[in-house]
Amino acid sequence: MCSRSVCVLELNRILRFNIIGNTHFSTIHVVNGFLFLILRLLPYFCRMIEVCLLGAGNVATHLYHALNGAEDVNIIQCYNRKGIPLHPDQDATQIITDIAALKDADVYIVAVSDDAIAQISDKLPFQNRLVVHTSGSVPMDAIAGDNRKGVFYPLQTFSKDKSVDFGTIPICIEAEETQDLNTLKKLASPLSDKVYEITSAQRNVLHVSAVFVNNFTNHLYTIGTDICEAYDVPFEILHPLIQETAKKILEIPATEAQTGPAIRNDQQTIARHLKIMNTDSQKEIYTILTKAIQSKHGKKL
Amino acid sequence: MCSRSVCVLELNRILRFNIIGNTHFSTIHVVNGFLFLILRLLPYFCRMIEVCLLGAGNVATHLYHALNGAEDVNIIQCYNRKGIPLHPDQDATQIITDIAALKDADVYIVAVSDDAIAQISDKLPFQNRLVVHTSGSVPMDAIAGDNRKGVFYPLQTFSKDKSVDFGTIPICIEAEETQDLNTLKKLASPLSDKVYEITSAQRNVLHVSAVFVNNFTNHLYTIGTDICEAYDVPFEILHPLIQETAKKILEIPATEAQTGPAIRNDQQTIARHLKIMNTDSQKEIYTILTKAIQSKHGKKL
Repeated sequence: MCSRSVCVLELNRILRFNIIGNTHFSTIHVVNGFLFLILRLLPYFCRMIEVCLLGAGNVATHLYHALNGAEDVNIIQCYNRKGIPLHPDQDATQIITDIAALKDADVYIVAVSDDAIAQISDKLPFQNRLVVHTSGSVPMDAIAGDNRKGVFYPLQTFSKDKSVDFGTIPICIEAEETQDLNTLKKLASPLSDKVYEITSAQRNVLHVSAVFVNNFTNHLYTIGTDICEAYDVPFEILHPLIQETAKKILEIPATEAQTGPAIRNDQQTIARHLKIMNTDSQKEIYTILTKAIQSKHGKKL
Repeated sequence: MCSRSVCVLELNRILRFNIIGNTHFSTIHVVNGFLFLILRLLPYFCRMIEVCLLGAGNVATHLYHALNGAEDVNIIQCYNRKGIPLHPDQDATQIITDIAALKDADVYIVAVSDDAIAQISDKLPFQNRLVVHTSGSVPMDAIAGDNRKGVFYPLQTFSKDKSVDFGTIPICIEAEETQDLNTLKKLASPLSDKVYEITSAQRNVLHVSAVFVNNFTNHLYTIGTDICEAYDVPFEILHPLIQETAKKILEIPATEAQTGPAIRNDQQTIARHLKIMNTDSQKEIYTILTKAIQSKHGKKL
């Protein structure tokens, strides 16, 4: 039995007891009035959140999969111009290609590319409803039109063909109104244990950091791969080191985990390394990051 | 019963059968001759590898823990100038502070800092024995003295207080002589499933790549932390993204996993990000890595 049913049964039991029980009338009156109020408010707390999902990219697809299995969430429509299903088994009647056909919903999630957020939200054929985007770098007020604005940003790198465990993904939410923030909390909580209220300014800061720890880190993996390939050394030998480097950040701050020739100011090794690199870009990045590590940790090149 | 005892018993059984069994004499002679040869060679294949471990740093400590529990390996002595035990329960008689007191062993592992390898190996009071260092960046011939040289390099980032699962750590081995390479293979195989024969030149290449994927990546984590701290945003929100970035490299090449404003040439986001960074060093690294990603992926800034 779901927690909602238990809650209603419990209320009925208390109501019955108070009406037929041997209790003073005025107490019955007060308690029943209070319970009547709770019952009136119950649908607000307990009913399904109805969602329309706009977009057909990586984020839309992964959100569809996560929300589709979530308790108390009902995806009523998915809009994208080409009518692409977000799952092979998706009910075709759920997919619309005409934005004007969007039904009433509690939340409209605009999971499209950053540039398209203003354009799509401007075409929404209604007003004063909760419209959220899913971008890390676009401010909330980029949502056009006269709707209530919000953000529902799952902070993760999504690939179309790679499933993700949504339970570990932080979801950063933002809304203009408290009531909408509560709706977004309710929408996020069955998906993830990590729900953060984050302002547009804070989200921008997170996004810059994410570029360093994800995009730039990935480019360092690319350089590592290129150097290994140039000398016919299998890059996979470095896989365990990469995993350990990422795991360490969960236990100690990065500044304490720093090792290597830069922080040791090991000029001999640095010189030998620079001879191995084949491109000016690799040498430039090596030199600048070496200098940055030494500057951060109080050593001069 | 250990596999060695089983092996010897089985050979005795076959020998006995061949001597007393109803077999043609010449066959007995040939088979017994063959088995005699195997028995003569058996100690070479089966006996414990005796190891002396020199050094008391992170690598020496982690190697001690790994080798101490390894089948067919016997650590007979540990040398370091201060007589520091490598484990709280280590037998005190095993620890020596006088390098001249080193006993006969199959392998002497010089697990000291890169600069000290030549110096320590030069002081060894014997010749023509197998002496290996554990460094990623020092050539094998940096080992001084008239001993047989080798390398036993576990490719991982070690912290003193953090235990590591040696089973997943690649061990790169190198030796001047085939027989010594075989000894190092036998020493490495109970420790790790990933044993690679790697030349000094290849090891140098691996070490440069390791600097990119470990040291420099860790510095990017430091920058991410600094940016978050400057704006009071909890950096831990980025932990799952960091883990996912590292996991992705196990499945798809880094060049295919590249995402973000650089590869999309999203100038608006890049400009907004540059405004957030507080230091010239952060801006310089951001600009150079953005340019490198675009150059690698065929886009111009």
